[in-house]
Amino acid sequence: MFGRDENVVPLDADRRRLAWVYLSRVVQGPCPALSALIEQVGVVEAARAVRECALPESLRRPTEKRRETDCAQADLDLVTHLGGRVITPDDPEWPAWRLLALSRLDPGRDADAAPPLVLWARGPLSLLEATEQAIAVVGARCSSGYGERVTGEIVGDLVDRHWTIVSGAAFGIDGTAHRTALACGGTTVAVLACGVDRPYPAQHDRLLSEIADTGLVISEYPPASPAHKHHFLARNRLVAALADGVLVVEAGLRSGARNTVKWARRLGRPALAVPGPVTAASSVGCHRMIREGEALLVTKAEEVLAEAGPLRLPLPTPTPLTPEESTIYEALPKSGSHQPTDLATRTGLPLPTIRATLPALELAGLIACDSSGWHRIEGDPR
Amino acid sequence: MFGRDENVVPLDADRRRLAWVYLSRVVQGPCPALSALIEQVGVVEAARAVRECALPESLRRPTEKRRETDCAQADLDLVTHLGGRVITPDDPEWPAWRLLALSRLDPGRDADAAPPLVLWARGPLSLLEATEQAIAVVGARCSSGYGERVTGEIVGDLVDRHWTIVSGAAFGIDGTAHRTALACGGTTVAVLACGVDRPYPAQHDRLLSEIADTGLVISEYPPASPAHKHHFLARNRLVAALADGVLVVEAGLRSGARNTVKWARRLGRPALAVPGPVTAASSVGCHRMIREGEALLVTKAEEVLAEAGPLRLPLPTPTPLTPEESTIYEALPKSGSHQPTDLATRTGLPLPTIRATLPALELAGLIACDSSGWHRIEGDPR
Repeated sequence: MFGRDENVVPLDADRRRLAWVYLSRVVQGPCPALSALIEQVGVVEAARAVRECALPESLRRPTEKRRETDCAQADLDLVTHLGGRVITPDDPEWPAWRLLALSRLDPGRDADAAPPLVLWARGPLSLLEATEQAIAVVGARCSSGYGERVTGEIVGDLVDRHWTIVSGAAFGIDGTAHRTALACGGTTVAVLACGVDRPYPAQHDRLLSEIADTGLVISEYPPASPAHKHHFLARNRLVAALADGVLVVEAGLRSGARNTVKWARRLGRPALAVPGPVTAASSVGCHRMIREGEALLVTKAEEVLAEAGPLRLPLPTPTPLTPEESTIYEALPKSGSHQPTDLATRTGLPLPTIRATLPALELAGLIACDSSGWHRIEGDPR
Repeated sequence: MFGRDENVVPLDADRRRLAWVYLSRVVQGPCPALSALIEQVGVVEAARAVRECALPESLRRPTEKRRETDCAQADLDLVTHLGGRVITPDDPEWPAWRLLALSRLDPGRDADAAPPLVLWARGPLSLLEATEQAIAVVGARCSSGYGERVTGEIVGDLVDRHWTIVSGAAFGIDGTAHRTALACGGTTVAVLACGVDRPYPAQHDRLLSEIADTGLVISEYPPASPAHKHHFLARNRLVAALADGVLVVEAGLRSGARNTVKWARRLGRPALAVPGPVTAASSVGCHRMIREGEALLVTKAEEVLAEAGPLRLPLPTPTPLTPEESTIYEALPKSGSHQPTDLATRTGLPLPTIRATLPALELAGLIACDSSGWHRIEGDPR
């Protein structure tokens, strides 16, 4: 049962929310098999199947440890108590089109190739709006004065142009990126590998509080979750997915930034790296990524935006539009833009259909999204 | 007439030498139309045609200014007096296979797309041997301490591995490259845009003398020629052609190094650039070339050699070998190597045929050349 009181049948929205939260705690991080089941039977039915262990073989192992623990309501109460919230795919602020690319990955290649089930959040902003135009800025924990200076300059310029800075709140470049964004009055989003109530690293307790005051601290792990080692790699995919591009300012030879860059490339986001003196260990990883074609060399904010804004996904060969796609495309004005809710009103199509179709049109290079909403791309988008 | 005394018929070799020298002073630098004429009718006949102005339209303008001046013997006497020599395509030290790529360029795209007619030289080494494995190291005149340090490290490592350093004797990176090669006891070749007797820049008088003492100072311009502005661009093509790859250590936004890199790419040589701090003007050109895909990022000698040694020309799709190519390939041992003269003896083919065929086999990725001679490449050369 979902609620605290078995005799009260929750409203459908609440049932779905509790199902999302329950499932997210069962699997603790990305689970392609569970995402597939939810897509097939819906979240409430998937939660029932997990609870009753009426599952295909592929889902028995990933769910066996916590399948019988349902603390969904307690988790929701806890996050509310912390002044936070849970964001599920049903919520208007769910960044559906950003996370779409995660659903399209081949889970055979990577066990983390799935969207998050929910995102826990602290902070006053809508996640959808905060990540409308966003650059991930990540890098070495052991950054140099040079790296911090360059991070400050590029982040300052990006914030001036109203770009959100997404990072991982680690020491070094991550911290400098968040701090610069805050200092410049910009929006910054910290994606954690632990619960949003946990300051990690501990020395960034105050920084995380400041981010939560004006921006967002988010995580796919429930409140109170510690930062397990394998969480960091899964977290990196969200850093990449939630931005229009990933910029690495400094990286040692074995930097985690390379993993974020790998995700960026798999998700079709530009991966960018800043060079530095070849005599500095803190630039070795950047040089290697540039040299091996994993990242493109950039030296300033203009070059970052030339690659990352607007979102430059590889264009598939033209395929005919579906009836829904045509209807939605036609409903967009030649100039100006619309929000998904406007489009639902104008087309009479259900909002979930609108939300699911817009990313397909964007991938086809026909439409784009900015702070004012979705709009047509005129002429040959290439 | 070619000689000083019209009544003495010079030996054929001398006649050819005088013809090369005469023509090279007439056109002063690369002249695709003249190279084409020489290829068609031979150098002696081409010299006669120029002298008598029995020329196609395309050659009248390029030859009109100096066609009537023949100071070939005086030029030869002058260079001998200077302790130098002229190297013509007839000489064993002519680096035919290095210069081959210049003959294959489309002169419609670039007026300088032709091999030199002769090369004037000062220095004790054979040009062919000195450039057997060579890297061009060029860069900003206004170099930084960082650039000089990196040049020193990379050049030192290349010299340790018996690579020759080719450069342009300019201030900054060029000078540091030559000086480091000399200091490490290595071989260095300076390619000038003026006569080999002219110290340019004047402050490098002593450096050029030192290079001529142990390495080579070369130029396609006759002794006493001043360094005209357009000579520098033509000179850059020789710097690129005479090396297995071009390395730019530092370059400002409008650096001549970019022109050398352009030549490297047109000639199928790897173009490499060293990154530096994005805050330094002296690295802006390198970053731009890397960013725009004109040069590959490298940080140390190992990476230079991974790209440039052995010569990595793009492999054409396999085509059947000609009878000469088969004969020469078969004459190469499975292990060990041969000089062209050995191959002439073994195959019974004329030496010019051997010399012309080896580069074609190399371009096909079947053979390669090192300090011991030509050898087969085993297995799939890719």
